[in-house]
Amino acid sequence: MLLHLSTWTEVEVYLSQFTGIIIPIGSTEQHGPTGLIGTDAICAEAIARGVGESTQAIVAPTINVGMALHHTAFPGSISFRPSTLILVIRDTITSLAKAGFTQFFFINGHGGNVATLKAAFAEVYATLADLNMTNAEQVRCQVSNWYMCGSVYSLAKRLYGDQEGSHATPSEVALTQYLYPNAIKQAVLDPNVSKDHRIYGAADFRRRYPDGRMGSNPALATPEQGQQFYDLAVKELSNTYLEFLGSV
Amino acid sequence: MLLHLSTWTEVEVYLSQFTGIIIPIGSTEQHGPTGLIGTDAICAEAIARGVGESTQAIVAPTINVGMALHHTAFPGSISFRPSTLILVIRDTITSLAKAGFTQFFFINGHGGNVATLKAAFAEVYATLADLNMTNAEQVRCQVSNWYMCGSVYSLAKRLYGDQEGSHATPSEVALTQYLYPNAIKQAVLDPNVSKDHRIYGAADFRRRYPDGRMGSNPALATPEQGQQFYDLAVKELSNTYLEFLGSV
Amino acid sequence: MLLHLSTWTEVEVYLSQFTGIIIPIGSTEQHGPTGLIGTDAICAEAIARGVGESTQAIVAPTINVGMALHHTAFPGSISFRPSTLILVIRDTITSLAKAGFTQFFFINGHGGNVATLKAAFAEVYATLADLNMTNAEQVRCQVSNWYMCGSVYSLAKRLYGDQEGSHATPSEVALTQYLYPNAIKQAVLDPNVSKDHRIYGAADFRRRYPDGRMGSNPALATPEQGQQFYDLAVKELSNTYLEFLGSV
Amino acid sequence: MLLHLSTWTEVEVYLSQFTGIIIPIGSTEQHGPTGLIGTDAICAEAIARGVGESTQAIVAPTINVGMALHHTAFPGSISFRPSTLILVIRDTITSLAKAGFTQFFFINGHGGNVATLKAAFAEVYATLADLNMTNAEQVRCQVSNWYMCGSVYSLAKRLYGDQEGSHATPSEVALTQYLYPNAIKQAVLDPNVSKDHRIYGAADFRRRYPDGRMGSNPALATPEQGQQFYDLAVKELSNTYLEFLGSV
Amino acid sequence: MLLHLSTWTEVEVYLSQFTGIIIPIGSTEQHGPTGLIGTDAICAEAIARGVGESTQAIVAPTINVGMALHHTAFPGSISFRPSTLILVIRDTITSLAKAGFTQFFFINGHGGNVATLKAAFAEVYATLADLNMTNAEQVRCQVSNWYMCGSVYSLAKRLYGDQEGSHATPSEVALTQYLYPNAIKQAVLDPNVSKDHRIYGAADFRRRYPDGRMGSNPALATPEQGQQFYDLAVKELSNTYLEFLGSV
Amino acid sequence: MLLHLSTWTEVEVYLSQFTGIIIPIGSTEQHGPTGLIGTDAICAEAIARGVGESTQAIVAPTINVGMALHHTAFPGSISFRPSTLILVIRDTITSLAKAGFTQFFFINGHGGNVATLKAAFAEVYATLADLNMTNAEQVRCQVSNWYMCGSVYSLAKRLYGDQEGSHATPSEVALTQYLYPNAIKQAVLDPNVSKDHRIYGAADFRRRYPDGRMGSNPALATPEQGQQFYDLAVKELSNTYLEFLGSV
Repeated sequence: MLLHLSTWTEVEVYLSQFTGIIIPIGSTEQHGPTGLIGTDAICAEAIARGVGESTQAIVAPTINVGMALHHTAFPGSISFRPSTLILVIRDTITSLAKAGFTQFFFINGHGGNVATLKAAFAEVYATLADLNMTNAEQVRCQVSNWYMCGSVYSLAKRLYGDQEGSHATPSEVALTQYLYPNAIKQAVLDPNVSKDHRIYGAADFRRRYPDGRMGSNPALATPEQGQQFYDLAVKELSNTYLEFLGSV
Repeated sequence: MLLHLSTWTEVEVYLSQFTGIIIPIGSTEQHGPTGLIGTDAICAEAIARGVGESTQAIVAPTINVGMALHHTAFPGSISFRPSTLILVIRDTITSLAKAGFTQFFFINGHGGNVATLKAAFAEVYATLADLNMTNAEQVRCQVSNWYMCGSVYSLAKRLYGDQEGSHATPSEVALTQYLYPNAIKQAVLDPNVSKDHRIYGAADFRRRYPDGRMGSNPALATPEQGQQFYDLAVKELSNTYLEFLGSV
Repeated sequence: MLLHLSTWTEVEVYLSQFTGIIIPIGSTEQHGPTGLIGTDAICAEAIARGVGESTQAIVAPTINVGMALHHTAFPGSISFRPSTLILVIRDTITSLAKAGFTQFFFINGHGGNVATLKAAFAEVYATLADLNMTNAEQVRCQVSNWYMCGSVYSLAKRLYGDQEGSHATPSEVALTQYLYPNAIKQAVLDPNVSKDHRIYGAADFRRRYPDGRMGSNPALATPEQGQQFYDLAVKELSNTYLEFLGSV
Repeated sequence: MLLHLSTWTEVEVYLSQFTGIIIPIGSTEQHGPTGLIGTDAICAEAIARGVGESTQAIVAPTINVGMALHHTAFPGSISFRPSTLILVIRDTITSLAKAGFTQFFFINGHGGNVATLKAAFAEVYATLADLNMTNAEQVRCQVSNWYMCGSVYSLAKRLYGDQEGSHATPSEVALTQYLYPNAIKQAVLDPNVSKDHRIYGAADFRRRYPDGRMGSNPALATPEQGQQFYDLAVKELSNTYLEFLGSV
Repeated sequence: MLLHLSTWTEVEVYLSQFTGIIIPIGSTEQHGPTGLIGTDAICAEAIARGVGESTQAIVAPTINVGMALHHTAFPGSISFRPSTLILVIRDTITSLAKAGFTQFFFINGHGGNVATLKAAFAEVYATLADLNMTNAEQVRCQVSNWYMCGSVYSLAKRLYGDQEGSHATPSEVALTQYLYPNAIKQAVLDPNVSKDHRIYGAADFRRRYPDGRMGSNPALATPEQGQQFYDLAVKELSNTYLEFLGSV
Repeated sequence: MLLHLSTWTEVEVYLSQFTGIIIPIGSTEQHGPTGLIGTDAICAEAIARGVGESTQAIVAPTINVGMALHHTAFPGSISFRPSTLILVIRDTITSLAKAGFTQFFFINGHGGNVATLKAAFAEVYATLADLNMTNAEQVRCQVSNWYMCGSVYSLAKRLYGDQEGSHATPSEVALTQYLYPNAIKQAVLDPNVSKDHRIYGAADFRRRYPDGRMGSNPALATPEQGQQFYDLAVKELSNTYLEFLGSV
């Protein structure tokens, strides 16, 4: 059930039975010479919808922009400041909690979002307590990164080994190829990709990772592999979501 | 050209020729018993992409949540505070302006966004001047509401007269029916819909407009009319965008 | 009844009968070579006091500075950021709402304030709801621009036609001449005034409108016309205020 | 020279000779059963204009609302949060500093403003340095309280002794009587006025000081004394301002 | 009783008897060629602990950084913006007030903190009232500067006369010598120290006070004098704290 | 070299050779019935000073309060909101970066700080870039948790196995026992300690972990073990710091 394709009366019915909601969050940032700028949002959205279908959960509209300040020296990247993203998350959860939602399950496509999301969750719990909301103490938030699923991680290692890297990875590129076969890009990729892992400011990042990749070889990606990743992530995160709901 | 389906190198090429970008902004809010919660984002996104195609402009990911605080007494609505939305716009434009974009054309689907967007533009100009960015003085922002296009407005008046109303209108519902024919909803609509126009706080809003509609009869909507609205809006806003680019 | 010339015990008596308050808001910004920098505050204050007298409403001290960032490349202009003005309005209304005021009628003298005021109203409603104030749901805010009164607008068009322009207009200059006859200024005005209407950043504004006027010929203004504008605005806004009070 | 009655071209001429500006700041708060709610703004404004005349300095519009949170349990009081007032001061000074003003002399009518003003000055110096403004290092701010002038303080002690108190004092009431003889109020004042000096939150304040006075007997005030205070304050603060300008 | 060396159960017992807490606040800023950068935090912490011992009060961890923006042109200085320090104080008091503390006694070592602390207290009272905390109306905050104790001030004047100055004073240096005898520094001090008192921005401060001292001769300091200052401050502030507790 | 026991001239000399600084950050929060409220700050401070000695690095004053909102239902806990802590870190780094420091090595004692610290680093890099600081691109921040050192973790597992738990652990309690042997606390600990790992809001946390411990048995701790942890952490983090400095 997709929130944006539902009516408020349908949501009212949903809330009479359930209190969980899935929120996809991505990023709008460079993904190397062949990765789509929307990769993280595309992946999170597709998997979140798959999880929503398999668990009958409602899925919120995707948060398309995240915390990607370190990518902003590459054109086309858009980033919220962490302080802005905290407010975005606060407003999103507060709006939904007032209606009765209490379990917020973020399916995330971008590593750079995790720290700010966790900071935001802490800020949100305190804010809801301040508001004297009756269900404030029931509110629970969790972020799950699709690319950190055990099954996904294993497949990526098996298929790509060290060439998986840590940004503009073949696994995420494969998933976008599966979802957008008409948007598969070609470019000559320098085999001497930086093996560094460190991330500081935007100018420093571009100097360290001149074409935007971090240790990855996305040329290995195929749409078929993308489908495998999709299936694994949906299956595993569906279980994670149900456990999250069940656990009090 | 869709930003999220492009690579940063493609954006770099685009920026060597163009400096304009189209940003769709919607809202996630109740639209009466039959209107989709995502109506405003759906409409803005579709029209923005149409305009992007016809003008060869790049289209940013949709801002799915806007300023809809007055709708938040209906379940499923999500809203940013105006102060949050100002930061969202500031961060979005700042990120893109650093890369060389200077003309920001927002295609908007929600009346409640307009005031905050205009406030945000003023804040952004001052922020960019503070940052001593070389192109700060060239940055120009504009918001165009698709439903305020002369051609759209005329058709809506001709088709629906007073029953167009001002929220959960048949014109916007028709457009979503055209775009999502599988998500057409049915419900019995009270013919005594409130004719009020005033908007204050969320609890007051729900009291004034018990089913969420403001003077509208969305039962008049058809997908065919939706296509007409789409075509008119894309055509008119394409011209508006080109004028915006051309005018210095 | 002027708030600043009242005692708190007088306000207490007033609140036992009434819950409305009039708040004049202006701006401190250039108004061309002959217009006073305080024009917008002067006009709003005088008209607000006239409305207060005719309706027995209490009138708050004038907010002398508004959102005029685009004028700040001209010396003497002072502007709040939109984000600051939102807090100014929030604090003002919150203070008064705690005492029992619920109907806030802003009489505004500056077009640049409108968007931010409307954004602020939305922020205020949500803030009051958060505070669990008992009268939060009764709070209603409205902004009325004196220069947009039908009667004022008609007279301006009749007297000045296209030379009314949209900033440093003869109508507002006339009103200040009526109110401050000793502060009537003379200067040679370039007849080739810019006819543009667009407003972006401060440096851009000064380039577009080199002497600060937007399409206007304030040399047409006379103090007698100013009195006419004053009388029309007070009369019309008094009715608007009473309707605002009466409408629930 | 009053900023609000000047044109931008007159300010431009002023700035070719001078870089100082006087900014009156008051408060809108209860002043006991007979003191005007606008007392602090009224006094600061009148004295600032007197100082402006005698020193040929430009005087900005009055900041009518200050930091008076502790008075907000009395109806009619309006207060900024300290965090809001800091932004108000920041925006005011930043606007003027961009035009070339560098010496900001605040004439203050309310003790509760002082701490926040001083905090704001520190914030402003750092903000201007961040903006890389060429004259940032020249900017200097000072607050002078008219009621703390040596000559004013001596007269108040001589006229009223201990009955001067520390809020709703006969000296400030006398000054408003001189300035607004038609707004002189009468009320029976409890001779057992609280002698306490402590100020905490708003509810606590009203409990400590039930009619709003702090140790004062404003029934001693006369308009003639008000004129004396006015003359002394204008004379002394004119010297203070000139010293402030001269000292580098 | 030191909070950081206690358990939460010990604090629970304490709160069953007492509601006061002592919070030392210092600064991390240059103190001339021989004064320690931590002088203000060191002094405030030691004295606060002495007061805690003699009054059986609990002492919170020291706030090591304060408002010292004007010192930041000297290396090693760290400062919060006033707006940041307000939030630091707000969060600190809010956390403790939720647990039942209501009397917050700040022992302060740095003059530059006072204005912001007082602004913060006002902000805190309003924030607690907003939160509908049951004990909000009981919360009282006070700042006492150890160097302003009558007994301390007299001794400093007696020992050093005019050479006490107002920053990097022999009295505070003496106190740090007593507390950290191994960190006594030597340097040749220019006898022509600036006698100025004015404080504006950081660059201006360094120009006015080239070696960081303001009118002081810290070469006069001895550890023995430091002990005298310590004893006097602890004794006097212990009384002040007990009066603060007792006074309602 | 301890910053608070140094003079600014000593820092100036240091900066002529080095650009790194170590910043200990802890928390002030409950640590179960026998753990000290200051545990995290105590441990971080001691280890940071040890690392400073062995690497000749300068060590900043300890940030005693961190992000511990989830502990605030236990008395004595103090927490910054994440949004506040971001500003605290921003101001700290900005102050030091202006003086020439570029490598900021945080030694952290509290897991709850990590997310907010990482968010803050991203915010800082962007802020410094905005300020056009010449060394903005060189600034690098890193957080290292002493309890996550491989050597520390191994010893804890070897000594305590599963009874290490994840809060109020025997390893951190042991370290405080070594550092403060006079503050070793005794209490009967329920052997049925919660094995949960989840952290949401403060009220929920206290319900899940009634005495504050998360799966730990701090009764196993001894001061001798504490010394072992200290030695291991200092040794390992000294290497980590030197690598951090060396790596560009």
